[in-house]
Amino acid sequence: MAEQKKMVNDITAMYEDFAKWYTDVVKKAELAEYTSVKGCMVIRPYGYAIWENIQKIMDSMFKATGHENVCMPMFIPESLLEKEKDHVEGFAPEVAWVTHGGSEKLEERLCVRPTSETLFCEHYKQIIHSYRDLPKLYNQWVSVVRWEKTTRPFLRTREFLWQEGHTIHATAEEAKAETVKMLNVYADFCENVLAMPVVKGVKTEKERFAGAEDTYTIEALMHDGKALQSGTSHYFGDGFAKAFEIQYMDKDNTLKTPYQTSWGTTTRLIGAIIMTHGDDNGLVLPPKIAPVQVVVIPIAQHKEGVLDKAQELCDRLSKICRVKSDVSENSPGWKFAEYEMKGVPLRVEIGPKDIEKNQCVIVRRDNREKYFVSLDELEAKIPELLEEVHKGLYNKALERRSNMTYTAKTLDELKDIADNKPGFIKAMWCGDRACEDKLKEYAGVTSRCIPFEQEHIGDTCVCCGKPADKMLYWGKAY
Amino acid sequence: MAEQKKMVNDITAMYEDFAKWYTDVVKKAELAEYTSVKGCMVIRPYGYAIWENIQKIMDSMFKATGHENVCMPMFIPESLLEKEKDHVEGFAPEVAWVTHGGSEKLEERLCVRPTSETLFCEHYKQIIHSYRDLPKLYNQWVSVVRWEKTTRPFLRTREFLWQEGHTIHATAEEAKAETVKMLNVYADFCENVLAMPVVKGVKTEKERFAGAEDTYTIEALMHDGKALQSGTSHYFGDGFAKAFEIQYMDKDNTLKTPYQTSWGTTTRLIGAIIMTHGDDNGLVLPPKIAPVQVVVIPIAQHKEGVLDKAQELCDRLSKICRVKSDVSENSPGWKFAEYEMKGVPLRVEIGPKDIEKNQCVIVRRDNREKYFVSLDELEAKIPELLEEVHKGLYNKALERRSNMTYTAKTLDELKDIADNKPGFIKAMWCGDRACEDKLKEYAGVTSRCIPFEQEHIGDTCVCCGKPADKMLYWGKAY
Repeated sequence: MAEQKKMVNDITAMYEDFAKWYTDVVKKAELAEYTSVKGCMVIRPYGYAIWENIQKIMDSMFKATGHENVCMPMFIPESLLEKEKDHVEGFAPEVAWVTHGGSEKLEERLCVRPTSETLFCEHYKQIIHSYRDLPKLYNQWVSVVRWEKTTRPFLRTREFLWQEGHTIHATAEEAKAETVKMLNVYADFCENVLAMPVVKGVKTEKERFAGAEDTYTIEALMHDGKALQSGTSHYFGDGFAKAFEIQYMDKDNTLKTPYQTSWGTTTRLIGAIIMTHGDDNGLVLPPKIAPVQVVVIPIAQHKEGVLDKAQELCDRLSKICRVKSDVSENSPGWKFAEYEMKGVPLRVEIGPKDIEKNQCVIVRRDNREKYFVSLDELEAKIPELLEEVHKGLYNKALERRSNMTYTAKTLDELKDIADNKPGFIKAMWCGDRACEDKLKEYAGVTSRCIPFEQEHIGDTCVCCGKPADKMLYWGKAY
Repeated sequence: MAEQKKMVNDITAMYEDFAKWYTDVVKKAELAEYTSVKGCMVIRPYGYAIWENIQKIMDSMFKATGHENVCMPMFIPESLLEKEKDHVEGFAPEVAWVTHGGSEKLEERLCVRPTSETLFCEHYKQIIHSYRDLPKLYNQWVSVVRWEKTTRPFLRTREFLWQEGHTIHATAEEAKAETVKMLNVYADFCENVLAMPVVKGVKTEKERFAGAEDTYTIEALMHDGKALQSGTSHYFGDGFAKAFEIQYMDKDNTLKTPYQTSWGTTTRLIGAIIMTHGDDNGLVLPPKIAPVQVVVIPIAQHKEGVLDKAQELCDRLSKICRVKSDVSENSPGWKFAEYEMKGVPLRVEIGPKDIEKNQCVIVRRDNREKYFVSLDELEAKIPELLEEVHKGLYNKALERRSNMTYTAKTLDELKDIADNKPGFIKAMWCGDRACEDKLKEYAGVTSRCIPFEQEHIGDTCVCCGKPADKMLYWGKAY
């Protein structure tokens, strides 16, 4: 293990002020910048490049599971939003309303979509007539607007980028299977692309999406012990279809009502990456989504042959990874700190002595381990190390989550953990909304999910003591 | 040349009603669908897949010319929009205004961006301090809103998808060079990707973008002889920078004002593709952006071995192009018409007799030419034919444009052409706004551009007869 000296001095230390550390990383790593509209941010090139990599990989996973991209309008007429009762109740309080086009007052107000179920339903009604028209497996990459009171870059913004999948099926079974399938795609993505372990489960009724019969979720644990809901997948039953009068003629010549799902992930995932892998030196990026996977830094670059060699390595590596070289006149120390702060997974150093020995020095961002690698083995070693960085990040996050997950059997125990030990709390629950409300009020925790992987940790509700057969994850959350 | 029989009967013929033909193609080929909000459309999977292909290729061209993607918010505070006088005058009459967030009235109205110059300026002011911070070469892929009165799918919609490039430079020369460079990228894209010839030129002052010192444009000619402005690139000088007080410290330690550009293309390009290449059988897609480049259709598919062979060809072709096979129970005739209507560039037919002869039949969409190709040569022949389709489409469009471009030396001549011969009119212009207005009023034509490639067709203004040294393209336009 190499030395752990602190190289970036203008980022607040995590333990001093986690929220400030987060904002420092967002700004210093040039991921995003504020604008004059509260809660709306500029996503800068480095931040947007991360989002592009997320999009590219996730989009290919959606297409591999048979989904097609579409694009719905951003405006929803008020009367359309109101068609499904639970849905409008959930969203109307937080939508932005367009009332004028130019100088003319609109006959009907339009909201900027907070989510697009109602638009998809309107469209389904136009295009679905027969069983032959089912299923439709759609997705769109757009931005949506929710007029939040408290906002933070990536984690909670009034406008955010996301993908929203919307599907419609002939049967409830098929729609339910889709809901779970897409949750698994999300979990797969978080673990195998973002190196971020997640708990898969179903939300309680209280935490469900407005209009859904069931909401599935993946929950990740951040560095500070707070949970981050990282993706959700909703099963709607036939509620929306009935409200919008969508029907299809089945093979048996009877009219039937189809079943729907929707599922979404957002630019919040960038916040999750920062708070899962980041450290006091700044960002640490999982290799698969890092805009720059390898940075080549020449040492003593004024010496003959160094810059040429750095360029040669960069050219070679560009064939197998996203690489850049920094040949600016800044000192190597400055460059080391800069690319550490930006979370570049691997640094390749090349100087006169290395050239003499036909080697280079490779340093991992995640644990600062240093390798002397023969230049002949570069193409073999780099992908191997990128894979190891990925695994290292995943294991470190998994271990932290494991260390920060507690079990509570009584209300006092739960309250004590909630007050003193940031993290997940596993506890039994009777299924009663009153107990859920009480845990929130008394201990400040909300139910994160009823995990698919249940454990037997008791038979009575942590709150009321009545019989309970569900083990839940509880916690404080972003 | 193969037979030219009409295979799709539910598309209005072009000569009967061009506007209806256009709408039929949009709907029958499932490119887009209307919504309950006037001027806002659903872009359906087939239409969106075209846009994705456009994006992918164009984005790589932007990146190859050094541009980075970012994402600005969709909202512009009224006071920000008002900072540049000409700009707000041009756009304020056609913006959508957000006045409420949830149930609360906003302190200041926000418009949904009609274009993002003001947002970029606000951001530049935050991040540009020194000559080292220049240039910034940005682009974003978003949607914008303009409250148009008359709307048509893809051609003029209230919300449309686009990319908007925004750059800022230390010198006017550099900014001017960027403006022209990006116009050339657009022209290159239209000709080499969309197989659509364009005229490159500069707009007259009257037709300039609000706030620009110069607007460059590419103009294409549609099937019906109307012009379609297909992309524009604007040079702003230092007007915006002054209005927004953006300054940088130069090497010589003096504060200087930078120079800006912006440039954009939109989903209107899909309208351009339809109206440049389409015919009475529907869509004809240029191979480079066709979602499906080759469709494999089994003939007598109930016969042993046919479906397997079709699948085998599809698997082989999937390695070199975007291919699908249609093994549905519809008749081959139905399938031929369906994929013609959808504009698939090449159709591969494979039946028992073909299998016997180790061959397949390939039919081009653009001219219906038929080829008998040995299955051993498939991988060589398909890319070659796709390239020929591209060239065929380009040449056909170029020839049509050439046949539909007229020269006028007098006002009567111009009026006669404008009334009777749809197309471009080349004519000299003195540079006087009054003459431009008169041509619009008297002959119904607008100036399309002052082309880079000037021709000497006279020395006097077509309108007033005074000395003129500029040859312009005039026409009716979308």
